[in-house]
Amino acid sequence: MTEIQGLKLLSTLDADGRLIVELAEERLPPPQADEVLVRVEAAPINPSDLALLFASADVENAEYSEGRIVARMPDAARRALAGRVGQPMTIGNEGAGTVIAAGEAPEAQALLGKRVALISGSMFAQYRTVNARACMVLPDDVTAEQGASAFVNPMTALGFVETMKREVHTAIVHTAAASNLGQMLVRIAQEDGIPLVNIVRNDAQVAILKDIGAEHVLNSSEEGFAAQLEAAVAATGATIAFDAIGGGHLVSQILHAMEQVASKDAPYSRYGSDSPKQAYIYGALDLSPTILTRSFGFGWSVGGWLLFPFLQSAGPETIERMKQRVMDNITTTFASHYMGHISLSEALSRDAVLTYNARRTGEKYLVVPN
Amino acid sequence: MTEIQGLKLLSTLDADGRLIVELAEERLPPPQADEVLVRVEAAPINPSDLALLFASADVENAEYSEGRIVARMPDAARRALAGRVGQPMTIGNEGAGTVIAAGEAPEAQALLGKRVALISGSMFAQYRTVNARACMVLPDDVTAEQGASAFVNPMTALGFVETMKREVHTAIVHTAAASNLGQMLVRIAQEDGIPLVNIVRNDAQVAILKDIGAEHVLNSSEEGFAAQLEAAVAATGATIAFDAIGGGHLVSQILHAMEQVASKDAPYSRYGSDSPKQAYIYGALDLSPTILTRSFGFGWSVGGWLLFPFLQSAGPETIERMKQRVMDNITTTFASHYMGHISLSEALSRDAVLTYNARRTGEKYLVVPN
Repeated sequence: MTEIQGLKLLSTLDADGRLIVELAEERLPPPQADEVLVRVEAAPINPSDLALLFASADVENAEYSEGRIVARMPDAARRALAGRVGQPMTIGNEGAGTVIAAGEAPEAQALLGKRVALISGSMFAQYRTVNARACMVLPDDVTAEQGASAFVNPMTALGFVETMKREVHTAIVHTAAASNLGQMLVRIAQEDGIPLVNIVRNDAQVAILKDIGAEHVLNSSEEGFAAQLEAAVAATGATIAFDAIGGGHLVSQILHAMEQVASKDAPYSRYGSDSPKQAYIYGALDLSPTILTRSFGFGWSVGGWLLFPFLQSAGPETIERMKQRVMDNITTTFASHYMGHISLSEALSRDAVLTYNARRTGEKYLVVPN
Repeated sequence: MTEIQGLKLLSTLDADGRLIVELAEERLPPPQADEVLVRVEAAPINPSDLALLFASADVENAEYSEGRIVARMPDAARRALAGRVGQPMTIGNEGAGTVIAAGEAPEAQALLGKRVALISGSMFAQYRTVNARACMVLPDDVTAEQGASAFVNPMTALGFVETMKREVHTAIVHTAAASNLGQMLVRIAQEDGIPLVNIVRNDAQVAILKDIGAEHVLNSSEEGFAAQLEAAVAATGATIAFDAIGGGHLVSQILHAMEQVASKDAPYSRYGSDSPKQAYIYGALDLSPTILTRSFGFGWSVGGWLLFPFLQSAGPETIERMKQRVMDNITTTFASHYMGHISLSEALSRDAVLTYNARRTGEKYLVVPN
């Protein structure tokens, strides 16, 4: 096989604060050694991809032309993004496709012709060359669309459960819980018998989770939410939370509810209860500051949670066990749902951008590059 | 020995939101078994004592009469303090005095006539009965005043260093650093060769710390503080902070500076640097919310830190080693300084309350109950 040519999506922030998103041609040489060349057939647009693709650029008022978007990055965001100025960045954390060429190493050759799910960081492209080890072979009856989201959401949801166990908690509070990830977590919790408190922001999301059998589903915009949260925390014994929102008061409210439950029948202490309360922020749906009232004693911790550092700390055995569970249940427990399919060039149209960049919970789009 | 009679300070919040602080008589029976009876000679007023004695009651407009204060507790605080309503609370975490009677157990008898430092939770009293194990025998040439603060501040400062090592950091950022505790930490850091960034709020406090040889002392109210902080974090390599303030933006600023340093020469990542950044809040000099901008990636954690849970996790060997270091250096490394001495009845006078409840950094008072 000779080298092939394909398109990839690039996002570049220039020093003047202009963000340029465009399609670029690339030439991919034949894969060497343990490399494989994958024709990308489906790649989901995850919130973490949007953080790189557009960050907080003003896509509403951007210039859209054939194969190119030029948008302004707000000044406040530019400071935080100084590290990427001038560097064209590829996008797309994960996806699925078919191995169309392979290096001479046996592990690469073994994948030839197979449909695989993979992690690469640049899946919004027609072709990708990756190490054979970055691929998970999909079962024969699983389509690229079904396998496209086999990594980020499934491994994150399973990672929450592993983290819960490792840190000796027995029940979980989850926010923005109607997301694809949230629905997976509901199913995992059901299968594993783990009590789960789901927090969502409207009644439609309540219905989504009730439909798949979630027991504790709370609407944070409803009056009486604080009391409902305390009751659900008491009923489940949850002392760990995973929060996709980040900004605002919700993390504080959750810790407060946990503390109310923990101190209910304990003697008064100026330091609060002895019960350790943990919240992990793993997303940034709300970019405003996290407000912690500290009305929950001193036995608390709030921190960032990311999949890759977690996997590093979990070790290969745990990762293998998690991956196997995902592959065995990719069309059931770990099924993802998409609102629509978008080609690489459509991904640069104003209508599409305003739709998929809205980051509405449960509304996920799939890039179909070929 | 027959039972003896003494005074103790009590703080009671009633259901109407009135806080009553008063002196009460108590009768102390002869100590039994491994108990000892201590005549209290000196007890420091720590911020943690004030949190129980007055919390956020309006002492400015309280009624002061002989041996009794009646103050209003603001409504917002009352909810948080619901657990103590109707319970008269004794006050005073630590102090020193002389063992004047002892139970028949050898470890109690061994303390008879000795001057001891102790932890009890109710040292604002003339006499205390405690377990012999709660006492540390002071060296012969150490006065009760010198030994009164042998526990909370020294063990907390040493606890910071132990925590730093346990969590694999090599340098510390400390706020409200001109406090008695902060000065101890400066001396410990000097002795142990640990780089320390001290943050204070005015020039007088800068001078206090410079006088005892602190290298990095920053005034957070000065223009250019953010840049100075980043430079000091870079110079020391600090990735852990201990914060006595709690409210406001300072913790966020510290984490931001750590992240700036960590990501300086790293390739851009939307998730921030890999470097773990830890901040512990161990005080509440500012009761307003903690504001976290999260402009420091996902490799961060903020949590409460308290001495007693730390000691529980540290284990007896570490505690013994820490205690021994304190006793060996109680008049040097771990020396405390007091702005004045207050009797139990003076502690209830308006002038004294407004002075010692002001919680000005470095201005600590000593209760002398006998």
